[in-house]
Amino acid sequence: MTKNDSAQLASQSVSQRSVNALRMLGVDMIEKANSGHPGIVLGSAPIVYSLWEHFLTFNPREPQWFNRDRFVLSVGHGSALLYALLYMNGFDLTIDDLKNFRQLGSKTPGHPEYGHTPGVDATTGPLSQGLGMAVGMAMAEKHLAGQYNRPHFPIIDHFTYALVGDGDLEEGLSQEAINLAGHLELSKLIVLYDSNDVSLDGPLSDSSNENAAQRFRAAGWDYQLVNDGNDLESLDTAIAHAQRSHNPSIIEVKTVIGAGSPLAGTNKVHGAPLGPDNMAKLRKNLNWQLQPFQVDEDVYNHYDNFINQKIEAYHDWQKLFNHYQDQFPEEAAQLQDAKLHLDEQAVQFKTGEMIATRNASSTVMQALAQENQNFWGGAADLTASNKTYLTDCGDFTADDPSGRNIHYGIREFGMAAAANGITLHGGSRTFVSTFLVFSDYMKAAIRLAALMKIPTAFVFSHDSIAVGEDGPTHEPVEQLVGLRSIPGVNVFRPADANETLAAWQTIGDIDDHPAVLVTTRQKLPTLADAANGKDKVARGGYVISPAKGEPEGILIASGSEVPLAIKSQQQLAESHHDVAVVSMPCMELFNQQSQEYRDHVLPPALTKRVAIEMGTGFVWNQYVGSRGKIISVDQFGQSGDGSTIVSNYGFNVDNVTQTYLSLQ
Amino acid sequence: MTKNDSAQLASQSVSQRSVNALRMLGVDMIEKANSGHPGIVLGSAPIVYSLWEHFLTFNPREPQWFNRDRFVLSVGHGSALLYALLYMNGFDLTIDDLKNFRQLGSKTPGHPEYGHTPGVDATTGPLSQGLGMAVGMAMAEKHLAGQYNRPHFPIIDHFTYALVGDGDLEEGLSQEAINLAGHLELSKLIVLYDSNDVSLDGPLSDSSNENAAQRFRAAGWDYQLVNDGNDLESLDTAIAHAQRSHNPSIIEVKTVIGAGSPLAGTNKVHGAPLGPDNMAKLRKNLNWQLQPFQVDEDVYNHYDNFINQKIEAYHDWQKLFNHYQDQFPEEAAQLQDAKLHLDEQAVQFKTGEMIATRNASSTVMQALAQENQNFWGGAADLTASNKTYLTDCGDFTADDPSGRNIHYGIREFGMAAAANGITLHGGSRTFVSTFLVFSDYMKAAIRLAALMKIPTAFVFSHDSIAVGEDGPTHEPVEQLVGLRSIPGVNVFRPADANETLAAWQTIGDIDDHPAVLVTTRQKLPTLADAANGKDKVARGGYVISPAKGEPEGILIASGSEVPLAIKSQQQLAESHHDVAVVSMPCMELFNQQSQEYRDHVLPPALTKRVAIEMGTGFVWNQYVGSRGKIISVDQFGQSGDGSTIVSNYGFNVDNVTQTYLSLQ
Repeated sequence: MTKNDSAQLASQSVSQRSVNALRMLGVDMIEKANSGHPGIVLGSAPIVYSLWEHFLTFNPREPQWFNRDRFVLSVGHGSALLYALLYMNGFDLTIDDLKNFRQLGSKTPGHPEYGHTPGVDATTGPLSQGLGMAVGMAMAEKHLAGQYNRPHFPIIDHFTYALVGDGDLEEGLSQEAINLAGHLELSKLIVLYDSNDVSLDGPLSDSSNENAAQRFRAAGWDYQLVNDGNDLESLDTAIAHAQRSHNPSIIEVKTVIGAGSPLAGTNKVHGAPLGPDNMAKLRKNLNWQLQPFQVDEDVYNHYDNFINQKIEAYHDWQKLFNHYQDQFPEEAAQLQDAKLHLDEQAVQFKTGEMIATRNASSTVMQALAQENQNFWGGAADLTASNKTYLTDCGDFTADDPSGRNIHYGIREFGMAAAANGITLHGGSRTFVSTFLVFSDYMKAAIRLAALMKIPTAFVFSHDSIAVGEDGPTHEPVEQLVGLRSIPGVNVFRPADANETLAAWQTIGDIDDHPAVLVTTRQKLPTLADAANGKDKVARGGYVISPAKGEPEGILIASGSEVPLAIKSQQQLAESHHDVAVVSMPCMELFNQQSQEYRDHVLPPALTKRVAIEMGTGFVWNQYVGSRGKIISVDQFGQSGDGSTIVSNYGFNVDNVTQTYLSLQ
Repeated sequence: MTKNDSAQLASQSVSQRSVNALRMLGVDMIEKANSGHPGIVLGSAPIVYSLWEHFLTFNPREPQWFNRDRFVLSVGHGSALLYALLYMNGFDLTIDDLKNFRQLGSKTPGHPEYGHTPGVDATTGPLSQGLGMAVGMAMAEKHLAGQYNRPHFPIIDHFTYALVGDGDLEEGLSQEAINLAGHLELSKLIVLYDSNDVSLDGPLSDSSNENAAQRFRAAGWDYQLVNDGNDLESLDTAIAHAQRSHNPSIIEVKTVIGAGSPLAGTNKVHGAPLGPDNMAKLRKNLNWQLQPFQVDEDVYNHYDNFINQKIEAYHDWQKLFNHYQDQFPEEAAQLQDAKLHLDEQAVQFKTGEMIATRNASSTVMQALAQENQNFWGGAADLTASNKTYLTDCGDFTADDPSGRNIHYGIREFGMAAAANGITLHGGSRTFVSTFLVFSDYMKAAIRLAALMKIPTAFVFSHDSIAVGEDGPTHEPVEQLVGLRSIPGVNVFRPADANETLAAWQTIGDIDDHPAVLVTTRQKLPTLADAANGKDKVARGGYVISPAKGEPEGILIASGSEVPLAIKSQQQLAESHHDVAVVSMPCMELFNQQSQEYRDHVLPPALTKRVAIEMGTGFVWNQYVGSRGKIISVDQFGQSGDGSTIVSNYGFNVDNVTQTYLSLQ
């Protein structure tokens, strides 16, 4: 289509006016808020109209319906379009909610927020993560269908759609997501690409000359082109075709950013309100006679007809699921259980046994996999190092989706985004793994998990400079503090096998926060005092080795530094300094405990404190106070023998003891 | 080729034995260290032999020669191969250095480290960043050639090569790098792809079914396939062809991981030493009769011949450059100057003027661009928001490489890696920019800049919850602490326009650390006391608003919270509490000052302290001590009016004052 001369925009057909209702509600919202992104609202309205009304299954009254089609607005800055769509499709949003777009506390925030607005399937805005999560949702659908559907009971059988823009596809994350989806032949993933050739800074050709068809085909996708993004029939045909594909599908839809407005086709309409003059011209171009936020009755009715059909489909499924529940009660229960369970006796570690926490974690994970059929996950090509393979659980592949080990390839960010998508889908609990240092590649997705309050588990091995020979590129230093600083992430750094077990039990219990589990490559002693530690670890910090009498000071440590602290405690005892050792496997949980509990673990009167951790020091100031000292790593690591490096960096008994003795 | 039956491996030609010398030195190193990655050493040796001996320009005695071809071993785990290559090519590495592979303090660490081993052009290991940096190097070459070459003086005229593996290309970063290079038509970038179909966890087909030819062609690259990675002639032909291409080139070389060893073609040979038995069989397969670390004299001579030719080319260039220096002394000086200069008078801001620090930064950057012809950079499609466009400096494009504004597209990580490559190349100073919250996407590259001690400048606007309407996905919280925790990164958060100016001056002076500059979207008052603040900002923290007499306490703040602290200081003065206000624009620099200076700014006797910053609180414990309090943001932001959110989160004068008054 050319810029604005399409007569279709101004057509008075009910379907065109229904499309234009989305357009006008969206830009009315943006005008009222004096903030937002009109370009995509005007450009993409026909795409979402075609998809939502003619294809998408959902029930506005049950927005979390398990077998609904999933829809991810990866172009999160197009939130106004999504809210208009949700409103017209009967979700629990009022016209006043639309009028409160981007206002504090409203149901219609600047970018779509999962758990905040009914009908929003994922929080989006950070570009390409929506696409990455959609891939995860489609993986979950394929896996759970393979695992839980039974003959005549296709209880899991839905599509996953995403609307993406040029920005999503410029991000490298998109390539990881695309390749993963292509490799896994996620045929029920359908991506609609709002291809408008304009980005914030100007024409897309300023930064890209990519051939999308070739790129997606290289990754095993079906590619279709819709030349006129206002042509509803072409859109319908393309989506119907994509539904029949044996591969994931991309539909590149050529649209005009800001279609209908005088600024159409330019970057000026991307991210700023149109203003009164251009709004008046837009109304004229669309032949739109109504007041702001006004919609014709027949347009409402038009949407209602679609809604009613969709609700019928929902009821059919609900009947099917009720029968399934009767016949397969255990499976049905699993699908509805967001917690992980672990028999207290399933795993036991012997005091004194030397075992790396990555291996202890592996042992626990095998038990979890046995007890929880819906526990699955994978690694970014480091399964053998992370020790996160689930034995006898099969591989999740294109041909056998019931397998529970995912080969993510060397795609950390794509892995993390997909895991968030799997978690958002519901019905299972999932984990991902790589080296701690490479958490850097996935940080933005861990943040998004925290923002969405979803329980994705991120398992990171090789947790310190003890990695040794691989050198500073592979030795984490600041990653611990970086992860702890994300609001709402529980970061566990267990001191031994028993704390690792307890950490997993705690992770399994918490379904409204993501968790990070950090494990060692090197062996650690299984400590007597950490046994049966679930409650202790769940409180984040506890006295793991008490003083013999009234302590005169405290050594505080996490992970592999806890046994070191205990050795120093013994050395100090020899020179008649009686100190307690506190293990701090999870600062976030500890900080949430009562003042009373915290004062019990860290009595305020005891100001002689040393904190010991092979990571950034400043996070420990909150526990050691002005008079304490911190033995930490605030420089990069080195390549060489791990235990020598560890000792050279001050993590040896003598240095801990001397540091304590140097306290005033 | 098939696995091990190529007679070529055992050929006694001097070139084949020269290839095998690289293989054997590499695996001897790994055996001796009992740590390393033999697979790629054995598989890729012919590729680097062909490239280095037949094409690469360098001078082992001047490893930093400005016009050398650049070589990036993106597959950093193949370090043993690179060290063998450097040794055989006369760089300052001895056979003892090879024997000390991966030992503490050796010149041959686990992964190649820039600045540590002569001849290493980039620190690599974190996958795909090598490729990203190679793209930056090729950008620098193209730009500087466009800007500084003169008729008959092609002083900048070299190729950039990278050796990449399957893992590099699975990473999403590779797509950003590839698209950037394709778009910019970096014809002198040649990527050699060690395509061995095996990754750490098993066959590549477990995680990927990508068609590399199609993928690279989609991005505007020339693609060639070399079917037998042991065929030196084919390798030579392909590289020669790539040199003539008008686009960036990829040469996919089918190799056998661990070629020659009994484990060839499997993931078992990826990351563990071969062990004595397999070493013996390898020796037999290669017909290699020498002792470990032994190389035949004629092989040494063979390499020496190549070296001599290369040194001749160096001398030719040196003559050319001497003439250039005579004729264009200013240009020659610029190319050799790693600092940024700024006339003290070039920029002035008026006290009281309201100006966002992003705008102040823009003003300073224009002056920098005027005074420093080799200052250039770009944004990830947020130029208009970050305010980092260099006026009248043109755009760096495929056709006009002399332009100084880079359109990176929405490719944050690729941008950061490329900027590191530009910096590594030398001859210019560069910056990149996006929103602070999206620093998450580039964190791993900022870390690598710090590890390499290179002065890339990362400019981030929209630095807090004050962003408002866009909501929590776009409001940074924990990013400040995350960036500060990277060892060796100077993070500047200036309080006003003058501090912004001083921050840029400090950044320009420091050429051995990367810098992060964080700016506001909202307007801030230009403070009287920050004027002429270069020395103050260079010390990281200073008393910006002293008490009237002897202070009873201190308010410490950074950035937009400094004016707030000053207002509270005034309010406190009204109730007869005389406090000082400390501005802390750069914690890292402050922490490097003498104890005396730090005690002058934060007198130990003054324990009544409040720190105020719109970011994670715990980083401030080091300054406020046990008795102080912190007003911080330790939860996600919200969507709504920015100033309301800021106030609701406690950043208002009354709350600061009350918090101070509540101190014991």
